[in-house]
Amino acid sequence: MKKKILILGAGKSSVYLVHYLLKIAPERNYFITLCDIDKANAEKLIGNSSHGQAVQLNATDATARYSLIKQSDMVINMLTRPFQYAIAYDCIRSKIPMLSASYEDPKVRELNKSAIENDIIIVNELGLDPGIDHVLSVDLIKSIEEKGGRIDEFRSYGGSLPSTAIPDNPLNYAVIWNPRNILLAGEDGAIYKENNHVQVVPFHSIFEHTWHVDIKGFGLLEAYPNRDALIYGNILGVEKASTLIRGTLRYPGWGETWSKVVQLGLTNETIVIPNLKNMTYRKFTELFLPASVKSDDTAQALASFLNINPTGRIMSNLEWLGLLSEDEIGFNAKTAAQAMINLLLKKLKLPPGINDVAILLIEISYHFKENRKKKYKTVRTMIDYGEPPGFTAISKTVGLPIALMADLILQDKIGVRGCVLPFHPTIYTSLLPELIANGIHFTDRQFK
Amino acid sequence: MKKKILILGAGKSSVYLVHYLLKIAPERNYFITLCDIDKANAEKLIGNSSHGQAVQLNATDATARYSLIKQSDMVINMLTRPFQYAIAYDCIRSKIPMLSASYEDPKVRELNKSAIENDIIIVNELGLDPGIDHVLSVDLIKSIEEKGGRIDEFRSYGGSLPSTAIPDNPLNYAVIWNPRNILLAGEDGAIYKENNHVQVVPFHSIFEHTWHVDIKGFGLLEAYPNRDALIYGNILGVEKASTLIRGTLRYPGWGETWSKVVQLGLTNETIVIPNLKNMTYRKFTELFLPASVKSDDTAQALASFLNINPTGRIMSNLEWLGLLSEDEIGFNAKTAAQAMINLLLKKLKLPPGINDVAILLIEISYHFKENRKKKYKTVRTMIDYGEPPGFTAISKTVGLPIALMADLILQDKIGVRGCVLPFHPTIYTSLLPELIANGIHFTDRQFK
Repeated sequence: MKKKILILGAGKSSVYLVHYLLKIAPERNYFITLCDIDKANAEKLIGNSSHGQAVQLNATDATARYSLIKQSDMVINMLTRPFQYAIAYDCIRSKIPMLSASYEDPKVRELNKSAIENDIIIVNELGLDPGIDHVLSVDLIKSIEEKGGRIDEFRSYGGSLPSTAIPDNPLNYAVIWNPRNILLAGEDGAIYKENNHVQVVPFHSIFEHTWHVDIKGFGLLEAYPNRDALIYGNILGVEKASTLIRGTLRYPGWGETWSKVVQLGLTNETIVIPNLKNMTYRKFTELFLPASVKSDDTAQALASFLNINPTGRIMSNLEWLGLLSEDEIGFNAKTAAQAMINLLLKKLKLPPGINDVAILLIEISYHFKENRKKKYKTVRTMIDYGEPPGFTAISKTVGLPIALMADLILQDKIGVRGCVLPFHPTIYTSLLPELIANGIHFTDRQFK
Repeated sequence: MKKKILILGAGKSSVYLVHYLLKIAPERNYFITLCDIDKANAEKLIGNSSHGQAVQLNATDATARYSLIKQSDMVINMLTRPFQYAIAYDCIRSKIPMLSASYEDPKVRELNKSAIENDIIIVNELGLDPGIDHVLSVDLIKSIEEKGGRIDEFRSYGGSLPSTAIPDNPLNYAVIWNPRNILLAGEDGAIYKENNHVQVVPFHSIFEHTWHVDIKGFGLLEAYPNRDALIYGNILGVEKASTLIRGTLRYPGWGETWSKVVQLGLTNETIVIPNLKNMTYRKFTELFLPASVKSDDTAQALASFLNINPTGRIMSNLEWLGLLSEDEIGFNAKTAAQAMINLLLKKLKLPPGINDVAILLIEISYHFKENRKKKYKTVRTMIDYGEPPGFTAISKTVGLPIALMADLILQDKIGVRGCVLPFHPTIYTSLLPELIANGIHFTDRQFK
């Protein structure tokens, strides 16, 4: 009998995932149902394949969603994180395994017992970062520990970037992915530990808090702290390491400019701003400037509010981004975030001839019990370039782990039940050889 | 037959509400079921009344919750805002009217049509602020418009405060209510309009954005912007006024200190910080200070990070609050917000002899068509003092509107269906005389 795989969401993150599952469908006897609020998105990815179908679904319609879930053998949730709990709950009720590439909602962790009782597995964080980084990290840590090493420092970096600097784009960043993710980046704040000092960073200062990271074989990048590094210390069993850092990679200079966008409040998704359609971006920016800095010269007011040099680099980046332009927003934006997404889509384009790159860097320092003073370090690097006009690196590295895991589970190769993450021994040891077999390459360098 | 009223949540906001409904229950033939995750909370409020019962309910248990809702004639939701949509949805499915004192979730507004089709009414924002302020505002606006007045400026302020300044408490603020609300205040940011200039204020600068408000009969207070004032312009039909402001009232000096707490990131509820239990509050504060300001003297580092005078008023307030103390947090706090709530509960106590006060101030400027230049102003003030050892002002002013509305609906005196707010003509004209009859007093002053 055909095994039915339900994929919720046909956005950019589903492109390679759907491609891969359709490719193996004939051999495995899979049938893919791909849902999206806009059926055309799903139709585009299913094409004329006889191994799948496109279905219209508004995922907030709990009844329609549940009835699709009930008919499946496997649910892959590619919707935004707020849906994760509801869909996991539906899957448990229907005894259907569920996978996602999103960070695990803490409420989902509480469903672990119910998932076990209903004999299913739920795996989240099956993308690039979180995802492949977890697999590469836990594998490296275990191999060091098996040799008797004790972990002192753990640093893990991930980034999805243009493959080279972009001419005429001083931020050297592009919308390769859902642009909303750029706006939401860092919104949960971050916590990490460096030399035994724990540092908490709230959202409004994440992008002021950057440092350089040199990627062998690529070049110098900039990192900002990525969410909760300490919880991964616990999960990886290295919570006693003096340094536990997870960082997100950008080209140098992104943080100092973007931190000003955040400081202005331009990433806000909750405040409804009326009449944005016919407003110029200059007027839009003025909405965020307090009366105390008001001036006929918006640039001057902006510089004085942000305490930046009015003729300096940050100011010219903000101007380049279009925050002072006389262009009208021109569409029915409701929030600052929506108006900003429009600018990002216009200005942060990946030009022809430049592809994207997905980078992971894991840096682990350790010692052996016999000689606490002698320090060793292993640096594991994954650099995966997109292959235009085919798949972007990010589409492949996000879609592949989840597709492979779906396949492993449907082949009954994974005996684990409950809510787990890729750190689980069965998961990472099953997934890593499959990732390698499908072209995910990494290199290790040893230092002593 | 008895009419069954289900109240979800037995926190501080339910005290007067339950008292009032139990008081009228014999005459009206009502039976009150009060649920709480901690049954003891509910038992305390029901006491030995034969007109009500206490029930244990974890509101995240959708099955248990739905089965209680189905058996009721009226649901009053006193849980936090994230529950509002799910409970409204349950009520629509079961054709039971629902009331709450929380701001209306925009998703609930989308249920309007379903509510009408299922012949029920859903009313949110039935508290003090939002709630009584809406009733007093719309009533005043309508009375001005009926005389031919055109509204130029609308300002509405609300606050729940200690009734006088508190000795030895430089912030003059106390936990009269759920302390979590102090941490969450302002988190959605704000938008307002003053002299035709729209101003957007993100969370991290809300408390730097204050101004004085003189309350006749009370004294000088400080206001900071409260959420979306423009949407109330639309609801009230005065969107063309040159000034539309809603503000929250505190004693002067609150904002300059609290803005630093926000800037540090101490109100964060999402980042899990390990080992807080045995950490001192000084060490806790250090978690938020970047390495660049590190010093052996935490106060010095804090002052330099916040860019404040190390011997000035703000610094002494932060010290008074306990942020530099050697006391251990001492309980299993998971987030900065939880550790802060503990400090607030310790330091911001309402001392014996001082009660609380609920204040509303509505200031409306207008002109008549015949003479655009002649400006008039009406200032409506409600000052309601708590009556220890009975009910606090905030408990009464939040509980009364919702209790009165429940009673009106169960008596079939409200023919309206759908999702509405107290601005609805039937709602405010029905509610206002009942509020007055139950001791809500206000005074109007005219200026021309």
